[in-house]
Amino acid sequence: MSSFTDLWREISDIGGSPSEGYVRFAWTAVEWELRTWFRAQAKARDLEFEVDGNTTMWATWNPGGVPGPAVVTGSHLDSVPHGGGYDGPLGVVSAFLAVDELRRRGVVPARPIRIAAFAEEEGSRFGVACLGSRLMTGAFDPERARTLTDSDGVTLAEALAGYDFDPARLGPAPLSDVAAFVELHVEQGRALTVPVGIGSSIWPHGRWRMDFTGEGNHAGTTLMGDRHDPMLTYAFAVLAANKEARTHGAHATVGRVAVHPNATNAIPSRVTGWLDARAASASTLDDLLSGLSAKIATRAGKDGTTVTITAESTTGEIGFSDALIERCLTTLGEKTPVLPTGAGHDAGVLSAFVPTVMLFVRNPAGVSHAPAERADDEDCEAGVEALADVLAELACR
Amino acid sequence: MSSFTDLWREISDIGGSPSEGYVRFAWTAVEWELRTWFRAQAKARDLEFEVDGNTTMWATWNPGGVPGPAVVTGSHLDSVPHGGGYDGPLGVVSAFLAVDELRRRGVVPARPIRIAAFAEEEGSRFGVACLGSRLMTGAFDPERARTLTDSDGVTLAEALAGYDFDPARLGPAPLSDVAAFVELHVEQGRALTVPVGIGSSIWPHGRWRMDFTGEGNHAGTTLMGDRHDPMLTYAFAVLAANKEARTHGAHATVGRVAVHPNATNAIPSRVTGWLDARAASASTLDDLLSGLSAKIATRAGKDGTTVTITAESTTGEIGFSDALIERCLTTLGEKTPVLPTGAGHDAGVLSAFVPTVMLFVRNPAGVSHAPAERADDEDCEAGVEALADVLAELACR
Repeated sequence: MSSFTDLWREISDIGGSPSEGYVRFAWTAVEWELRTWFRAQAKARDLEFEVDGNTTMWATWNPGGVPGPAVVTGSHLDSVPHGGGYDGPLGVVSAFLAVDELRRRGVVPARPIRIAAFAEEEGSRFGVACLGSRLMTGAFDPERARTLTDSDGVTLAEALAGYDFDPARLGPAPLSDVAAFVELHVEQGRALTVPVGIGSSIWPHGRWRMDFTGEGNHAGTTLMGDRHDPMLTYAFAVLAANKEARTHGAHATVGRVAVHPNATNAIPSRVTGWLDARAASASTLDDLLSGLSAKIATRAGKDGTTVTITAESTTGEIGFSDALIERCLTTLGEKTPVLPTGAGHDAGVLSAFVPTVMLFVRNPAGVSHAPAERADDEDCEAGVEALADVLAELACR
Repeated sequence: MSSFTDLWREISDIGGSPSEGYVRFAWTAVEWELRTWFRAQAKARDLEFEVDGNTTMWATWNPGGVPGPAVVTGSHLDSVPHGGGYDGPLGVVSAFLAVDELRRRGVVPARPIRIAAFAEEEGSRFGVACLGSRLMTGAFDPERARTLTDSDGVTLAEALAGYDFDPARLGPAPLSDVAAFVELHVEQGRALTVPVGIGSSIWPHGRWRMDFTGEGNHAGTTLMGDRHDPMLTYAFAVLAANKEARTHGAHATVGRVAVHPNATNAIPSRVTGWLDARAASASTLDDLLSGLSAKIATRAGKDGTTVTITAESTTGEIGFSDALIERCLTTLGEKTPVLPTGAGHDAGVLSAFVPTVMLFVRNPAGVSHAPAERADDEDCEAGVEALADVLAELACR
């Protein structure tokens, strides 16, 4: 059995299973198990273990005791509800194995190599994606973070205190300590046909709330011609978003809906749907949204309903470091695919502040955020090799 | 001000308001206020007040002290959540006023006239529509009724006990006591263009659960062509149901939906929608369902999803008593409209056991089960007159 298979197996029972998926939310008993595992891995390798004020875990390899900024790798350990096991943990497991590999090769880095595990990357518990890295970069206000509440009404400050983390320590950390950041991640959309690729950018993306308002009424007695049924306009919007995305070569999804009163025998008075849309360029995304909005407005006119579409969050394109992409290509071979992703990552947050790049490992099914998410062990081993190569390149030259 | 306006005003602040709608659930403090009002109305008119084992309230007018079966009128006092004020209470208020009118006319009935207020007609609290009348007729098992639970986990037995009703007394009552039942009700779909009409039947209707299954996946990264998104098939079904209903001159509504995991950034793995469909004949309803099922199955094939459609409840056509309809026409005039309804009623339950008919009062907006449900005071007064005419016809001859 390979070292990857062994180390992977150590966490594969924590917070779920490959068949049922994983529920690994930040600052819970399950995450604490993963934190304990991380600490043990650092200790087993004689790496310096540290937890910073944002509860990011760090394991530092600095055999020469050299000062100066570090080459950072890693990812996150939390999951979406019933998500796959690879999104996040693959980057952390691979980081430890890459250090092992560098040692096996006899590499002595000229600057520190640090492994990071950021907290609450998925935003599954408190609703803010990449919260740990956003706090680190100052992109999210720690005062606001402390008052975020989970679905049980627990504040983030309370959740931290429950594990003896000090909520007062949340906040920006000096990024001058970071020379470069390399995040290895499972690819999430069947975009890779070889084991490993290099990330170029994160697609512009956004979330829009679509509020459809009609007239609540009796499902049995209201004449079809008298109805103002917002469910019809919602259904049209779902299909139109799919069609617009295909037309534009973009991605659009309506995965969340709320209905009032949500009763079998009542025409709803109100339906709210959330649109997630992403595209390779901001102008494509704008075109998609304006085309879709116009079509929905026309349909609402026919349905006798009203619709308002509100942006809840939008993010422009995030390009990774051209210089790092070049050095990855030199190291891994010029034929290595360079590809964008539609997903957000801690690497996307950090890239505004420090040179950043991502490595992707092939996902044969193209499934992510669901139990069927996976990567072959052989591809994961190739990912470890590639990460070791890139870390050697960045930490030794 | 008319006597209708006065009496109507007495309950218009209980459990809501005309602008916000009403939340009048069975066996709650709000319903207890309505029960107190009913009892006071009976007392003010020197009617014999009684509550039976199913918590149906009765007020009996029997000035001659004659024995034998009664002519029963009335309706219910509970509402759907945020429903209108007329659905139910109009029939109870009109019943008291019809007795007043008969007294004013000097009518002495040859058999008892009884006013009934059935409990939990809407099924808003325990999920079973017409529960009071179903228990009375033996159409619902009292043992099962006692264990029904509301959304707070309170059993029906506990709810009853909270108001000193004895759950052990639930069950069938002798229907030989009922000579005829006349339920006056607000019309619910703008089907009446004159103040008062006569009910002919209740449309065949049913509820079907539509389970759409696909593949949960990442909304940002999954290629459009790789998706198996059950929300698309659901949306198609919503629009197709509407179209089929219009084609068949029937009614179809999807007013309730549940999504898993219902997250903005996740393609759902599962969507469940509930279809409410009703038509003038059972064969039309069958045609609607089979046409719709075929279209949805075809679309599911294209979406790479699966769908199963399960009947949760179906009811055939319920015709009211031809003899009573004839007597109503004779009494109210041969030009009085005779019309079916798409809604269920206690009258529909009772009609299988005793001669039953309904009177409808015009609903100018065609809205029901929502705050905008209403009837003009003048039409309600015409309804009281018509009910008095019909009760005189049935109780004196």
